[in-house]
Amino acid sequence: MERVKVLLEDHEIPRQWYNIQADLPRPLRPPLHPATGKPVGPDDLAPIFPMNIIEQEVSQERWIDIPDEVLDKYLLWRPSPLYRAKNFEKLLDAPVRIYYKHEGVSPAGSHKPNAAIPMAYFNRIAGTRRMTTETGGGQWGSALSMACQMFGIECRVYMVKVSYNQKPYRRMLMNVWGAECIPSPSDLTAAGRKILSETPDSPGSLGMAISEAIEDAVTHEDTKYGLGSVLNHVLLYQTIGGLEARKQLEKIGEYPDVVMGCAGGGSNFAGISLPFVRDKIHGKNVSVVAAEPSSCPSLTRGPFAYDFGDIAQMTPFLAMHTLGHDFVPAPIHAGGLRYHGMAPIVSHLLEERLIEARSYNQLETFEAGVKWARTEGFVPAPETNHVIAAVVEEARRAREEGKEKVILFNWSGHGLIDLTSYDAFLSGQLAPYELPEEEIERALRVIKEFPKP
Amino acid sequence: MERVKVLLEDHEIPRQWYNIQADLPRPLRPPLHPATGKPVGPDDLAPIFPMNIIEQEVSQERWIDIPDEVLDKYLLWRPSPLYRAKNFEKLLDAPVRIYYKHEGVSPAGSHKPNAAIPMAYFNRIAGTRRMTTETGGGQWGSALSMACQMFGIECRVYMVKVSYNQKPYRRMLMNVWGAECIPSPSDLTAAGRKILSETPDSPGSLGMAISEAIEDAVTHEDTKYGLGSVLNHVLLYQTIGGLEARKQLEKIGEYPDVVMGCAGGGSNFAGISLPFVRDKIHGKNVSVVAAEPSSCPSLTRGPFAYDFGDIAQMTPFLAMHTLGHDFVPAPIHAGGLRYHGMAPIVSHLLEERLIEARSYNQLETFEAGVKWARTEGFVPAPETNHVIAAVVEEARRAREEGKEKVILFNWSGHGLIDLTSYDAFLSGQLAPYELPEEEIERALRVIKEFPKP
Repeated sequence: MERVKVLLEDHEIPRQWYNIQADLPRPLRPPLHPATGKPVGPDDLAPIFPMNIIEQEVSQERWIDIPDEVLDKYLLWRPSPLYRAKNFEKLLDAPVRIYYKHEGVSPAGSHKPNAAIPMAYFNRIAGTRRMTTETGGGQWGSALSMACQMFGIECRVYMVKVSYNQKPYRRMLMNVWGAECIPSPSDLTAAGRKILSETPDSPGSLGMAISEAIEDAVTHEDTKYGLGSVLNHVLLYQTIGGLEARKQLEKIGEYPDVVMGCAGGGSNFAGISLPFVRDKIHGKNVSVVAAEPSSCPSLTRGPFAYDFGDIAQMTPFLAMHTLGHDFVPAPIHAGGLRYHGMAPIVSHLLEERLIEARSYNQLETFEAGVKWARTEGFVPAPETNHVIAAVVEEARRAREEGKEKVILFNWSGHGLIDLTSYDAFLSGQLAPYELPEEEIERALRVIKEFPKP
Repeated sequence: MERVKVLLEDHEIPRQWYNIQADLPRPLRPPLHPATGKPVGPDDLAPIFPMNIIEQEVSQERWIDIPDEVLDKYLLWRPSPLYRAKNFEKLLDAPVRIYYKHEGVSPAGSHKPNAAIPMAYFNRIAGTRRMTTETGGGQWGSALSMACQMFGIECRVYMVKVSYNQKPYRRMLMNVWGAECIPSPSDLTAAGRKILSETPDSPGSLGMAISEAIEDAVTHEDTKYGLGSVLNHVLLYQTIGGLEARKQLEKIGEYPDVVMGCAGGGSNFAGISLPFVRDKIHGKNVSVVAAEPSSCPSLTRGPFAYDFGDIAQMTPFLAMHTLGHDFVPAPIHAGGLRYHGMAPIVSHLLEERLIEARSYNQLETFEAGVKWARTEGFVPAPETNHVIAAVVEEARRAREEGKEKVILFNWSGHGLIDLTSYDAFLSGQLAPYELPEEEIERALRVIKEFPKP
């Protein structure tokens, strides 16, 4: 009987989040105001976020204290266990030791509550009574529903319509936690009505749902907006996972050669990797790899540019890898990875060559995911399957190179509420899908007139 | 920040299961052969179970070693965390400390793999190449699918038709783990065809699905049958949960006044409680309470009698509380609690007054479950909601009596694959349902001619 898990006791939970802005060799490009082309100030963001969160968004402090009220809720599932995937290693038959951080143990089944809990808390103490948000695959929407319920905040979630229809259980889960879930585009907002009048059958997109959620927030009293990824403060909250993993590996005297995460908006990938990117900045030899879908390849194929975060152009310009804010992704089954842009921090790290990016098509990701479920037991979320595909590739490389490697990756969530996508895969209804080159040309046209980073 | 979880490290996992047969003041009544009325011998059971499992079924040894191969798989999620439900306590505002054993952390999301893993393992070493089973809510069927996959055994699950239709995700989950899932009654067996010819619209029942699974096993080469509850060896495997919980409470210097579990066939309830029933036999002051649905009240209203375990009368006579082997339960939403009988061990303990039983209707169980999800975060399985309703009642009593109480209960699984039933509840489609008195009279007629215990 060999050890499989590395645990941390409740009292060993990290008490601070890590802010990589303090360690960046060159600073992030600031968000710009679309009208003036100048960096946005706190006041520009005040209609949608409370001031305490805006301060975190721009903070240059390396360590940010986690409030006790947030720690109390984190302890419901954190520290999450670090696993060694021995059964999967055996299947791969490569000279690798694979460690994964099991974020599926949270009540919502993913890493998303790491950000939802502090976001609801900081809103609560700032006086917010109602929050709006968007969700793609439904992971974020359910996480914020739970967090809002715990802190007594009303919550409305705009869910990308194609996911809303593919994943009925997600809406039900949000309802159990007391939130409202609206398929987007909807007729509840001017942005939604405009889209519906032009394309009544629109499958929706994260960009559209963000527009609706922001409009709803700015047009209702005591209402703020919460974003589930992309922004600096969201990535900050997610670092709790990477900080725990680092501590857990230390306990058994290991350090990773490669750290991997799947990347949609970037928060899960950043969560596991930023503490290791810090080590890399300070000279440590570690590779950091983001895995994204080939159907929505913002990091691997999208230009680095200033672009809007949403279709209705309600956000500031963000400096990021983007497929264009009007991008409507193919209805692949990893709803959480269908955002047109990538977090400015993650995009910046790629520009600085501190991380690398790889893309995988949905067929190879489900193949990897089914193999995983059949050896390690836990059924991964479709999003998580992307990083598992990357692990399979990394193990193959290690075998070819005859080189021992320690791999750490973020097992971002389970797929028990996403089984319809496995069903589609197992019954042969899924096709690999690569984004056509025309879509990249379209993206370049969209950003042509925008300020250059 | 106060401690919420009590953890055990991998190396602290119990190495033996506990067999209560060694401690019973009076022995269990043996299963009887329907043709002879005499106790069945190992050879009578050999067509459906491998001999190593039959030996465990009748063993009088107090402690049974857990093989290393089983421990290796257990470690994928065991030892499971013991939680203090502080948020729920606060809501109840009663002088209670509530501890729950979180069995939802398993890959299948419930306690069922505790039994499925050893069952598949013992079958594997006995040469079984294919297994059949039945499932009600789908928890057991998915657990055995996973376990069979891990030990290289083919698996076919007969799933009660009403649940098969209510819970499409369960079938998908079994498929992900490589198993076949067939709605029962089916036309694949003589038992199924007979039922369909008489009642083509039959919603199915566990009793019917068991008949189909047993017939399938005895008519196919190298095929054995696996039962997910009721029998002694299944309850034995489940004691790992109670043994861990006892160790975890010891770590923090606690001992429960009340131990609770929901009870369908009895394995989850027995798993948490048998180690404490042992203490009670040896003089310890502890209450042990089973919570069952008022729509299927075998313990609270069913007579204690010899009856068949299945509708086609393929099993031996078992001495148990029963609603009659031809009982067709109402289609309530806790599929796992719809069995007509109760485990002989649990039934015996009730006769010996070592445990008590209470029943709850589905409305009060879902009310309790939604309150739980909105405070503790985790969404309970509909089955689990029954024990949560019992905890709510126990806390109310403690408040009325002004008496401090420590409650331990088995949080048997999460409800993320059972969200349709929450949806029915939240949209007002569920009614309370009490079993009509005629059904008890029917049960008495059914067992009238059978041997008396």
